[in-house]
This record gives sequence, structure tokens and C-alpha cells, in this order.
Amino acid sequence: MSQTFIQTLRETVDAEWAQIKQGEFWRHVMSEPVSRPLYRDLMLQIYHYSRHNSMNQAVAAFVPAPEGLLKFVYRHAAEELGHERMVTHDLNSIGLLDEADLARAPLPATEALIGYLYYVALRYGPIARLGYSFWAEGVYGHIAGPFAKISQDLKLTSKNLTFFGSHAQADEAHIQQVEEAIERFATTPEDQALVVKVARTTLSLTGQLLDQVARQHRAPPGSALS
Amino acid sequence: MSQTFIQTLRETVDAEWAQIKQGEFWRHVMSEPVSRPLYRDLMLQIYHYSRHNSMNQAVAAFVPAPEGLLKFVYRHAAEELGHERMVTHDLNSIGLLDEADLARAPLPATEALIGYLYYVALRYGPIARLGYSFWAEGVYGHIAGPFAKISQDLKLTSKNLTFFGSHAQADEAHIQQVEEAIERFATTPEDQALVVKVARTTLSLTGQLLDQVARQHRAPPGSALS
Amino acid sequence: MSQTFIQTLRETVDAEWAQIKQGEFWRHVMSEPVSRPLYRDLMLQIYHYSRHNSMNQAVAAFVPAPEGLLKFVYRHAAEELGHERMVTHDLNSIGLLDEADLARAPLPATEALIGYLYYVALRYGPIARLGYSFWAEGVYGHIAGPFAKISQDLKLTSKNLTFFGSHAQADEAHIQQVEEAIERFATTPEDQALVVKVARTTLSLTGQLLDQVARQHRAPPGSALS
Amino acid sequence: MSQTFIQTLRETVDAEWAQIKQGEFWRHVMSEPVSRPLYRDLMLQIYHYSRHNSMNQAVAAFVPAPEGLLKFVYRHAAEELGHERMVTHDLNSIGLLDEADLARAPLPATEALIGYLYYVALRYGPIARLGYSFWAEGVYGHIAGPFAKISQDLKLTSKNLTFFGSHAQADEAHIQQVEEAIERFATTPEDQALVVKVARTTLSLTGQLLDQVARQHRAPPGSALS
Repeated sequence: MSQTFIQTLRETVDAEWAQIKQGEFWRHVMSEPVSRPLYRDLMLQIYHYSRHNSMNQAVAAFVPAPEGLLKFVYRHAAEELGHERMVTHDLNSIGLLDEADLARAPLPATEALIGYLYYVALRYGPIARLGYSFWAEGVYGHIAGPFAKISQDLKLTSKNLTFFGSHAQADEAHIQQVEEAIERFATTPEDQALVVKVARTTLSLTGQLLDQVARQHRAPPGSALS
Repeated sequence: MSQTFIQTLRETVDAEWAQIKQGEFWRHVMSEPVSRPLYRDLMLQIYHYSRHNSMNQAVAAFVPAPEGLLKFVYRHAAEELGHERMVTHDLNSIGLLDEADLARAPLPATEALIGYLYYVALRYGPIARLGYSFWAEGVYGHIAGPFAKISQDLKLTSKNLTFFGSHAQADEAHIQQVEEAIERFATTPEDQALVVKVARTTLSLTGQLLDQVARQHRAPPGSALS
Repeated sequence: MSQTFIQTLRETVDAEWAQIKQGEFWRHVMSEPVSRPLYRDLMLQIYHYSRHNSMNQAVAAFVPAPEGLLKFVYRHAAEELGHERMVTHDLNSIGLLDEADLARAPLPATEALIGYLYYVALRYGPIARLGYSFWAEGVYGHIAGPFAKISQDLKLTSKNLTFFGSHAQADEAHIQQVEEAIERFATTPEDQALVVKVARTTLSLTGQLLDQVARQHRAPPGSALS
Repeated sequence: MSQTFIQTLRETVDAEWAQIKQGEFWRHVMSEPVSRPLYRDLMLQIYHYSRHNSMNQAVAAFVPAPEGLLKFVYRHAAEELGHERMVTHDLNSIGLLDEADLARAPLPATEALIGYLYYVALRYGPIARLGYSFWAEGVYGHIAGPFAKISQDLKLTSKNLTFFGSHAQADEAHIQQVEEAIERFATTPEDQALVVKVARTTLSLTGQLLDQVARQHRAPPGSALS
């Protein structure tokens, strides 16, 4: 039964990914030379939301939850703390870090993702937020393609990709923990519906984030590339 | 100075609208026959978020604000209360209301908009939320085109368009009140930046909402229309 | 059945009042000459919490509630707005207003009452908060005795007692509205238990507030009065 | 400068303790034989608030705070998790645990303490909440007297006092951590005022909690003990 739920959840997430892969970001990155400014702007958005992932995880404790899940929540919050510094490290390692950029407002989808996750925390609580963790921990498989292409275009090495690299390595263990938590705690139809809703909404916003980055770097109409 | 800010804000909003008008919803509605299911699905999304507009306005009182602005907040919250019933009335008036539809989860962008506005309320407060009111009160001018096309395609009369009609009429007075509130209360650079951020984010999410509705009704590849 | 609940609620509240009437404030005010500083300090605490009663009422809209109750919430929030100015008016009318006093931290029980009511709003919502309104709207009957004694001791007239006076007059209608709201909306055992809990907790804190004011003005040991 | 602040804070806390030690609980426990029901009712109140101490610590992450403080917050939240089970263990070890008691509403001061700490978390954040940790980590020194008297009256051994015992042992290290955190993070006058306010309010509520427990076990008027 709960195995079935993980499958349903995975299908929902895969459908969202399929849509993202037809979007402007994917098309741009995979079929055009990626510029340094586009990469910088992508990383800036990742910087913005990753700064909040620890806190909006911890805040989910506002909604009553089983002790085992709260343990997961606190460990997860502690692990995520400060991860945005890997983003700034990576930008800095190739001369793309400008402190002033960090203070600029995030793109609409990034801001919406940040705010929505605090809402999830305060309104729905830790079980629902597992929907975000479910796909976020497995994101690196999906985005390996674009990141390989970006690395190639910008001649990045593993030293320039600590954010991506460290998360990709932590991947397998984390995915299993999240799936176990979902199987153990998201057992009612109501909770499972919340997990699906949060998974879908946050992944959809992330797709928007990617496309909004790409849109900032759209070739002007009439140029050779358009 | 604050006159200038309203202008800046209007330019931000107009730029978002320009993008929305190039999106899939606009293209679909303006250049293809609109089906009853598409209209129903659009109205269902409006139903979902309009159910929360009163509450997420009131909750903004969590963040300290000037008394004059709180008066505006309470009056506005009271006025918005129950407006979703106009949506169900309009659907019902043409035989498109199925109660089961109302219980189904909103689309990702709708869910994100609902959640983000509660976040705005609890985190940023009443001044920032004026950014949403600013464009939302003036939305009817922008969407008059698509709604006229929909009305024509589905042979709707004013009796079927109470939600759109009543809001459109209240428009002028409300816009002026919101602009006055912005000029009076959003006077620091920080508050003005929040107003812009909330305006942009919520309008961008609304554009996504429209496009996600349209995507549900995309002609299948290989069909005559595609 | 719900009539019975109002009776249960009234008994709970009356038991709390009985305890308050045995407390240090009551004893001090009723049996010793009331000094201007004691009256000033009492009014300062009323100033502190009454500044928040409008907002912590509105914020209760965070928790889903019936439309009829939300109407009550918004109207009530609007009516309470700015009432703390009657307190400062009353202090000023007898030369006891010092703006610096308003900026000083409230006493522990006052701070707890303010914070607890925001918690009630965000966690329990509008039905539970009716427990506070239930006894607060009827407070003037209970405190008429001490206020008459204070008025006599300090030679206050109705011009110096606008906060007390205006609320006392609004009393009867408000009590009836609150009781009707409780009978209509607090119908499940869970909701009724919350109403009782909030009534008891907030009235107990108010009793503490009074006693903490009195304690500040306790005659030093060894003085003639002790 | 910050050394001075710790001293100020300690004086505030000591003044509150001095008052608590003149209260009904202290007098009752230190000068009359303590009954099993009184001890049970005390432990039930400790059960109620200690169930929330982990979560209302984690939720403080809603308010932006330095990374070093958030680390403290998460570790502290994780350490507090499930401590209420020591309370039920201790009650059970002497045949005083009745599951039905756990479901009963807490006393007003306990409920206020629980709610106020969530408010502190959402409104003031992690720095302010250090005011609670400051005295709570050092509570065991203050209450050693009453607990020794209770142990003697009820013939309790260390096996019956795991909650008190384990906390008392953890005391010294924790106090130092909290004081270091206060010295490092509560550096502005505003933040220091919040720390003092939260320390005072939460300790005052705890004093009320104790006195409300004692009041439940007051000898009836006319009995030999009164």
C-alpha cells in the first residue's frame, strides 16, 4: 500500500520533470552554448532558495508530528545549514561572484518557492514537506545532463562544482531516508495528498525558476541564434 | 517621489503582463475556440485562490503596521469574504458546476499563489501585500480581452459573469484606494522593494496559473489544431 | 446543549473571577487608598495589551473558520482598533501620561497575555478566541467595584474614564453577539474545550496582571500600612 | 559589556526566583507534608510544557538568525525531544501514572507558557528564546530544595527521579553554552531587552504554574492545617 504510494508520488514527480525538460531552460542549455552570465544567474537563484531550506525545514515543527519524524526534521535542518556557501564558493572559484548580486531580489519563481516552503512548514508541517525532500534529494540525477553540458561549455572541474558534487554524493543515502520517512509517516490519504501536492508545487516552481533564468538570457529577436 | 514609485511599480507590473500575454493561455484563448472544459478549469482555479484572499489579507495584521493601513486591511478582508461563491454561481449558471471539482487539489501555480500570500502576510505584513492588491484590483482591464472572447465562444451573458462583472465595476474606486495606501505607507526603500517583489511574484504566479490551465487543454500532438 | 455549554463556560469564568477577587490587587484597591502611581501602572498594562487585541483577533483568520465567524472577526478587529488611545487619553486627562512609560516593557503577565493571544490566533483560530471575548466583553461588570473605588480615591469623573465608560456601554450588545457566536460555532466537544481553555488561561493571566500591578505598590514591610 | 548583560539578566532572574520562593508552592512544599497527588499534579504540568520545548525551539528558525545560533537551536531542539517521557517514567515508577491524566487540559499558567514560547519563536526568534534557556538550564539548582523535600516525603530514589536527575547532570555544560550564545548573539540593546523580557515572562509563568499546582491542594478552610 505505502509502496504503491511512493510509486504514485514518483509518477507525479516524473510527469513534472518531463514538462520541465520541454521548457526553455532545458532547450537553451542543451542546444546552445551556455554563457557565463546564464550560469551565474542560475547559481544565484540556487543561492537564494538554498539559504532557506534549513530554516523552513525546522519551522515545520510548528505542526504536531511523530517524534521519529521530528528527529529527521532536525537532522535534516542541521545538514542543510550553510549550504548556500557552496554556491558562492563555486561562483567565486571561476570569478563570477559579485557580493552585490547576492543582495538583489530573487526571480519570482525563486521567491515563490522560498515563501511557499515556509507556508508548507507552518500550515501543513513535517509530513507534507517530505514531498519537497522526495524530489529534491533526487534532483541530481535529473539535472546531471544540463550540468554536464554547462561544465563542458564553461570548462568547469569538480573544484568548481562543490554544491552539485557534494549533494550528488549524499544522494543515495538521503533518498532512502526520505522514502522510508514517507512510507512510515505519510500513511493516511490526507497526508499522502499533501505530500503529492507539495512535491508537485515545489517542483513546478523549480521548473519555473529554471525557465525564468533562461528567459533572462533569451537571444534577442533577429539575432543569429533566434 | 512616491508618485515615481507608483510609476516604477506599474512598469514592473506591465512587464509581467506583457509576458503573460505571450504565454500559452493568451494564445489559446485569443486564437482558438474556447471549450467549456477549459473555461470550467480556469474558473476552478479562480475559485481556489479567491477563497483565501480575505483570510490572507487579515492575517497580515501579524506584522505591526500603521492604524490607517490596518483599517484598510480589515475593510478589504471583509469585502473579499465569500467572493468565491460568485465563481461557483457563474459555473452553475451554465451547468458547469460539479461539487466534486471544488474538492480537487488546485494546480501547482494556484497552490503556490495561495501559500505565498499567507507567507507574505506572516513575514512581510500589510504594506508588502499592497503589491498584490495593486495589480489584482486592476486585473479586469487586462483580462477583458480573453473574457470577451470566452463570452463570445460560450455565449455567456452578464448573468453568467457575476464574478468578473462585480469586480470590474468595483475596480476604479479600489485601484485609487490601493494607490493611495501605497503612496501613504510604502515610503521607505525597503518597503517599496517588498511591494515590488510581492507584485511581481504574485502576478508571475497568476500567469503560470493561466498557462497551466491552458496546458491541460492543449490539443494532442498530431491533431488538426496543433 | 449549547445553552448548557455557555453555562459551563460561565461557571469556569466565574470561578476564575472568584480567585481574582481574593488576590492582592482586589484587596489593595478595595481596602487601601489607591495612589495615582498604582492607577497609572494599571492603565499602562491595559494600554499594552489593548494595543494588540485588534491584531490578534484578525490573525485568527489563519485557521480555517466559517464565513459567518470570519465576519464577526473582522468587525470585531475593526472595532478594537486604536482603543489604546482611550487609555492614554484617560491618563493624560489627569496629568499621568508620560510618553516614556509607554515604551517600557509590560509586566510579565501582560507580555504573556499578548503573546498567548497571538498563539491562540495562529494555532487555534477564531472559535477558540471566542473564549477570550466571552469574559472580556463582560469584564466591566466585574471590575466596576474597584473602578468605583479608584474613581472615588482619585476624584475621577466620566471625562477621565473614557476607556472604561465606552466599553461598559458597548457591553450588553457585545456580550450577546459573542454568546450567539459561541452557540453557533463552538459546537463540537473539541472546539468547546478550546473555548474553555482560552477563557480560563486569558482570565488567569489578567488576574496575574492585576496582582503584579498591586505587588509593585506593596507597602514596604514595617510601614504603617503593612 | 556583554558580561555586564549576563549579570543584569541574572539579577532579573534572581529577583523572579525570590518572588517564587515566597509563593504558595514553596511554602506548602517546604513546610507541609507533600502528598502523592500534589507531586503527581506537579509532574503532569511539567509533562505538558516539556512536550513542547523541542518544537518551540525549532520553530524559532522562522526569524532570521546567525548560522552559529541556528546550529545551537537545532542541537538543542534535538536534545529536548521526548524528554516528557522521563516525566511519565517517573510517575509510572511509583504507580502515579494514569494515561487519562495526560489528556486533561494543562493548568492556565502551563498553557500560557506553552503558547507564549511558540509566540516567542515566531515573533522574536532564536536570540530572544535564549532568555528562557538561560534560567531553564539553571533551574535545578533553584528547585533542589523542594525536590529534596518531596523525595523525602514520598520516599523517592534516583530511579524515580530521572527527569530531574538527568537534567541536573546536564546542567553545567548547558548553562555555559547558553551563556556563551547570549554573549555572542545578544549584543544589541534591542536583542538584550528581548532576552530579559522572555526570561522574566517565562519564569514568572513557571512560578504561577507552581502556585496553581499548590492551590489545587490547599487545605480546606477550617481543617487542622489551615
